[in-house]
Amino acid sequence: MAATRIELYDTTLRDGTQSEDIAFSVTDKLRVAAKLDELGIDFIEGGFPGSNPRDHEFFQRARGELKLGHARLVAFGATRRAGVRADDDPGLRALLEAGTETVTIFGKSWQRHAEMVLGVSDAEALEIVHTSVAFLAARAGAVVFDAEHYFDGYRLTPEFALAALRAAAQGGARFVVLCDTNGGGLPGQIADATRAACEVLGPGITLGVHCHNDGELAVANSLAGVGAGARHVQGTINGYGERCGNANLVSVAPNLMLKLGYDCLVEGALPRLSEVAHFVAEVANRTPDSHQPFVGGSAFAHKGGVHVAAVARAPDTYEHIAPELVGNHRRVLVSDLSGRANILYKAREYGLSLDEGDPAARARARGILEQLKELEARGYQFEGAEASFELLVRRGLGTAPRWFDLLSFRSLSESAQGQPYALSEATVRIAVGDRRAHTVAEAHGPVNALDGALRKALEPFYPTLAGVRLNDYKVRVLPSGAGTASMVRVLCESGDGSSAWGTVGVSESIIEASCKALLDAAEYKLMKDGIAPPDWGPAGAAPTG
Amino acid sequence: MAATRIELYDTTLRDGTQSEDIAFSVTDKLRVAAKLDELGIDFIEGGFPGSNPRDHEFFQRARGELKLGHARLVAFGATRRAGVRADDDPGLRALLEAGTETVTIFGKSWQRHAEMVLGVSDAEALEIVHTSVAFLAARAGAVVFDAEHYFDGYRLTPEFALAALRAAAQGGARFVVLCDTNGGGLPGQIADATRAACEVLGPGITLGVHCHNDGELAVANSLAGVGAGARHVQGTINGYGERCGNANLVSVAPNLMLKLGYDCLVEGALPRLSEVAHFVAEVANRTPDSHQPFVGGSAFAHKGGVHVAAVARAPDTYEHIAPELVGNHRRVLVSDLSGRANILYKAREYGLSLDEGDPAARARARGILEQLKELEARGYQFEGAEASFELLVRRGLGTAPRWFDLLSFRSLSESAQGQPYALSEATVRIAVGDRRAHTVAEAHGPVNALDGALRKALEPFYPTLAGVRLNDYKVRVLPSGAGTASMVRVLCESGDGSSAWGTVGVSESIIEASCKALLDAAEYKLMKDGIAPPDWGPAGAAPTG
Repeated sequence: MAATRIELYDTTLRDGTQSEDIAFSVTDKLRVAAKLDELGIDFIEGGFPGSNPRDHEFFQRARGELKLGHARLVAFGATRRAGVRADDDPGLRALLEAGTETVTIFGKSWQRHAEMVLGVSDAEALEIVHTSVAFLAARAGAVVFDAEHYFDGYRLTPEFALAALRAAAQGGARFVVLCDTNGGGLPGQIADATRAACEVLGPGITLGVHCHNDGELAVANSLAGVGAGARHVQGTINGYGERCGNANLVSVAPNLMLKLGYDCLVEGALPRLSEVAHFVAEVANRTPDSHQPFVGGSAFAHKGGVHVAAVARAPDTYEHIAPELVGNHRRVLVSDLSGRANILYKAREYGLSLDEGDPAARARARGILEQLKELEARGYQFEGAEASFELLVRRGLGTAPRWFDLLSFRSLSESAQGQPYALSEATVRIAVGDRRAHTVAEAHGPVNALDGALRKALEPFYPTLAGVRLNDYKVRVLPSGAGTASMVRVLCESGDGSSAWGTVGVSESIIEASCKALLDAAEYKLMKDGIAPPDWGPAGAAPTG
Repeated sequence: MAATRIELYDTTLRDGTQSEDIAFSVTDKLRVAAKLDELGIDFIEGGFPGSNPRDHEFFQRARGELKLGHARLVAFGATRRAGVRADDDPGLRALLEAGTETVTIFGKSWQRHAEMVLGVSDAEALEIVHTSVAFLAARAGAVVFDAEHYFDGYRLTPEFALAALRAAAQGGARFVVLCDTNGGGLPGQIADATRAACEVLGPGITLGVHCHNDGELAVANSLAGVGAGARHVQGTINGYGERCGNANLVSVAPNLMLKLGYDCLVEGALPRLSEVAHFVAEVANRTPDSHQPFVGGSAFAHKGGVHVAAVARAPDTYEHIAPELVGNHRRVLVSDLSGRANILYKAREYGLSLDEGDPAARARARGILEQLKELEARGYQFEGAEASFELLVRRGLGTAPRWFDLLSFRSLSESAQGQPYALSEATVRIAVGDRRAHTVAEAHGPVNALDGALRKALEPFYPTLAGVRLNDYKVRVLPSGAGTASMVRVLCESGDGSSAWGTVGVSESIIEASCKALLDAAEYKLMKDGIAPPDWGPAGAAPTG
């Protein structure tokens, strides 16, 4: 028997932009829509053309530029105003002008809300729903009715809530969507109220749910709706949305497909889920949540010890699904490395082949392990600093080129009463083969000054470094032994637009630790870009400055 | 009728630290435990003493330093090894040595996992559970048995899973906790398997659930467990934990209390939920999630337009609960209304009382509010820096003495190839009344050097400062606006043996930010000890150095 199809309706481009920290340009929206279409989302709500000139422009450009293979683009709006005929309502007109085959309108299904916000009688409120839907149904290919506040409405005045659904159905709505607008519903309530809606609406109408995450239950509530008969789920990529966000389709889809046996998305697209989630985060300029279910970088990460051994033997002991199913992958964290086997595992992960049968390779692996243990004892930690780890392994294998030597640095910071802020100056001396650079830079903070001086020194030799940005910088003071000063660990995340990498530096001095992490970041970029090292002369001796 | 009590068991300090980006020092753990106790968490799992020397130290220090009013501190461990008698098992011994009245052990309840990982027969696996629990039950006040993989086990081999629970019960476990170790369970599965466990275990045993968030369902699964008869929920603050995290107690608690009518936490503590959630985020050095349900800064934020007007008239149209119930507040994003009430609220949050009836106090509160807004706009944040906040309020009220002025500082760090480490030198100039000090100190790191120079300058005037230690030091780089350098926020925790206090400094320079936090720490100590300020002369003018 074929699996039951659940339609996914994405509103990242409309409800998602209600999030206070997300704003998409029209071009962003076109890129996201194209990506959602590739994933096999069924409906893409593009915006609210009646309320927002940018959304109006989006639909205009979409008509020319957006070629959808699977999805239907949807324009969103509201029921007509009270006391205005549907034909005269500017919002409904704007909605049709967007030119989408499917249109969505939201309307009242909570009696008290209708009364307070619209100030109309029950009969008039229902008439607004009916006439608005009917007006659109006569002019568009299909109408989706979003029953705002349906779950609160059903709990308090079920007759009115169900009457609103009936009014939409009688008006010709093809889809009726039950909204938990406040986001505070519980799965049991959602299930009961969805079942009641199923009974009222005939089989010709697709019932949907639209949940918000204010109780941290949006995914569960969406599944509860499906369990009670809904066949259409609205949500957003990564759960973006106002307040605590919308139902996260990135979690809803794999739960429906892999756990509950429903059919969603297009054939074979589920392994693209991680890529799409990260793409949308990137376009939204939001840091991807590393702990995000299914697609986060930590979602299948295992620390050393018992878990790693068990996962190697039987992945399902600590993995609820195979990570590849959603385009993610298992990570063995580099902490607490206890054996040569782990080093070999990590080396393979980086595409470095260490032949276990080769005694020389085994000896090198032992050497790397020794160094790693020593570094970890000094406070190094390579979780989140995989670029530094890869450099360490390559240096141990003798395959890391020597692009430059840092000969010295100096950092001066000062502040005096009456000055608005502190000032820092940094100087560095480097060697690149037989050439030298001695540079100075100034900034408010010492790390920025040091970064500036290093750039001035290195970029003339390696112009590709001009494209590297410091995305994030974290500092942690490590617990110290009795009577000793604390070690400081600096984690840097650098990026060049096409990828990002983490590096680490540890020292008792935050300046020195930062310097180490910044130098690793530069070396990793040079390695990544395949930049040739200089000629260090026949002896390759360290210069004496 | 009194509401049914649901016990909350927090494992932030144990399972939470399995998160790849969380590492607590022993002092951090003591501070978090004290805060969880104030909130009314029933059980605080402090660590795994048998696996981790740092956790061993935590329990040692907790015995002397941690005064819990409500919570029970719990040590965590595993069942005995196969083939070892319980009395000879080093893990069980380490668990008892932690000296907690309640101890928790996890053991196998998934047949296949027991077979693969332990390599023992079913009978022997059950015997391991039984004898381990019995050994502990004879020696500790109460034993919690965490049935690892119970839900997977129940789904595949229910007889074995239930037999494991029975073995624990017969061994004398007072609490049996069903774990969704893989985090992939669905609410319906959790409910069914919990009901089955309820039937097997008698009424003398408290049944609990321990869920992970791999399907984005941990909160829903925890509620499903309670709905099916569990009366004990395990989770972490903010959902921190390995992979996608544990059930988020910050969402579980208000859902149970405000939506489902259960009794949790101590009387009156729910409005402290936001404060506790942010405090733990700060100590964990994790950026608080602004979209976090219930406690996030955006959880009750409304964009302009329809929502704001509707919310003003009837808050429940767009708010699922009154934000004050969980110590959060509504934010209107268009014109972010901050008022005098906010500062009074914040002052109360930190335990300072301002008499609202007194016009002079109201005027001062307005002044403090202005300054606070300005500081917050620059990146200050006083969660985890209560001492700096108290100083701010007292300065605003005119009740903070002026013990010293910092006239200037200078910090020099240098490193050269061949030197084993960097060296830093710091100089400071201070004024105390009409006296001056100009001092210099050296250390490997610039913050230690600065701390040393400040101590040399201040201790001759204020010998009590010799007893102050810098316990912890954290740095966070704040997201920067376009084209501007990032601000750095330094949080210091200082202590003098009898108490500990947090201070904050923000600057583009990490040295200056550190200096501010160190100075606040010294001033707080002087205030706490009631040290008299110097005579600044009739004009009290700032010295010109």
